[in-house]
Amino acid sequence: MKLPGKTVERLSEYRRTLLECLNEKKNFIFSHELAARLHITAVQVRRDLMLIGYSSVQRKGYDIKELIDKIGTIIDSQVSLNVAIIGIGNLGRALAAYFKGKRSKLNLVASFDTDPQKINKVIAGVKCYSHNDLEKMIRELDIRIAIITVPPEYAKETAEEVVRYGIKGLLNFTTIPLNVPSWVFLEEYDMITSIEKVAYFVKENLR
Amino acid sequence: MKLPGKTVERLSEYRRTLLECLNEKKNFIFSHELAARLHITAVQVRRDLMLIGYSSVQRKGYDIKELIDKIGTIIDSQVSLNVAIIGIGNLGRALAAYFKGKRSKLNLVASFDTDPQKINKVIAGVKCYSHNDLEKMIRELDIRIAIITVPPEYAKETAEEVVRYGIKGLLNFTTIPLNVPSWVFLEEYDMITSIEKVAYFVKENLR
Repeated sequence: MKLPGKTVERLSEYRRTLLECLNEKKNFIFSHELAARLHITAVQVRRDLMLIGYSSVQRKGYDIKELIDKIGTIIDSQVSLNVAIIGIGNLGRALAAYFKGKRSKLNLVASFDTDPQKINKVIAGVKCYSHNDLEKMIRELDIRIAIITVPPEYAKETAEEVVRYGIKGLLNFTTIPLNVPSWVFLEEYDMITSIEKVAYFVKENLR
Repeated sequence: MKLPGKTVERLSEYRRTLLECLNEKKNFIFSHELAARLHITAVQVRRDLMLIGYSSVQRKGYDIKELIDKIGTIIDSQVSLNVAIIGIGNLGRALAAYFKGKRSKLNLVASFDTDPQKINKVIAGVKCYSHNDLEKMIRELDIRIAIITVPPEYAKETAEEVVRYGIKGLLNFTTIPLNVPSWVFLEEYDMITSIEKVAYFVKENLR
């Protein structure tokens, strides 16, 4: 069964919130509590968890540890997936930091850059290779997912390159919308849009 | 008229795409071309632009320059809005770079950090102040929007502080979901969710 993209997003968010709860020494949680922490409805939580075959224990709520494991079996890769960051500037480094010790089955195995100062160095915990070796290293390291954090003017050609070299999933952090073939999964992530949205609502409320 | 959040997001994306078109020396664009570049339907584009009172010139499509200006009058602030980045690590710096020369009415006026090495220096083009001066500087510089890029363990207290000091819009880039009072606009932006979503679909396609 292939889950809808929005459900996968929420499962990922549930897990992160449940991990927080564990840190707070909680063992059980009700759907409405989980919902409140994520600003969604309890009905949505229950529907998503039913979809992955999970229901709550009467009057105690969900068993947090069990639910974390269950979500893991659904959304985590059972085989490891290797990831590369293309363009290891400030944003690339920030993303590399997120990976440290967080993903068990997602391995950040390389970064790529054109800056000679960076090539062959370990940056933010991951080795940086020359952009010229993209094809060779994607094959050698079996990289399946590319995170694109290059300057916008290089976004299109970089995406074309990595797709040609066999990448199956692309995460685009540049401001340029990309096109990929149907067999590649693309997720676009534009920060400017979020900033403009906040500004719009703040402006409306100042009126 | 207050537009729905999703419409504001798309208007922001239309404008960015239109600016790209101008760079390519295009003067007119059809709704289906604009739609294709953003992977949405032409009906959606036409509906959004009708909502802001804009229709296309027969057989030529939309006048790109006019449409850029029109979108600006809707989503841009006519008064300047001052923005601060709280936590000027790699992600904070990447975001600061986005601001340079891009937003006319959104001014990045300050960053805040607790690291003595950063305080009172100009980092990524913006002056960094001590986190201890948050209240004072928010009032002095009339900061209305805060972008939170602190380490996750400080996310909650930082949000509470800036809200207490009068911030009206919050952009949360940490992995911790936040709660804010109803008069504050909150946008959450979690990168891990995007990475897990891409991984899920790549894994499903490898099966």
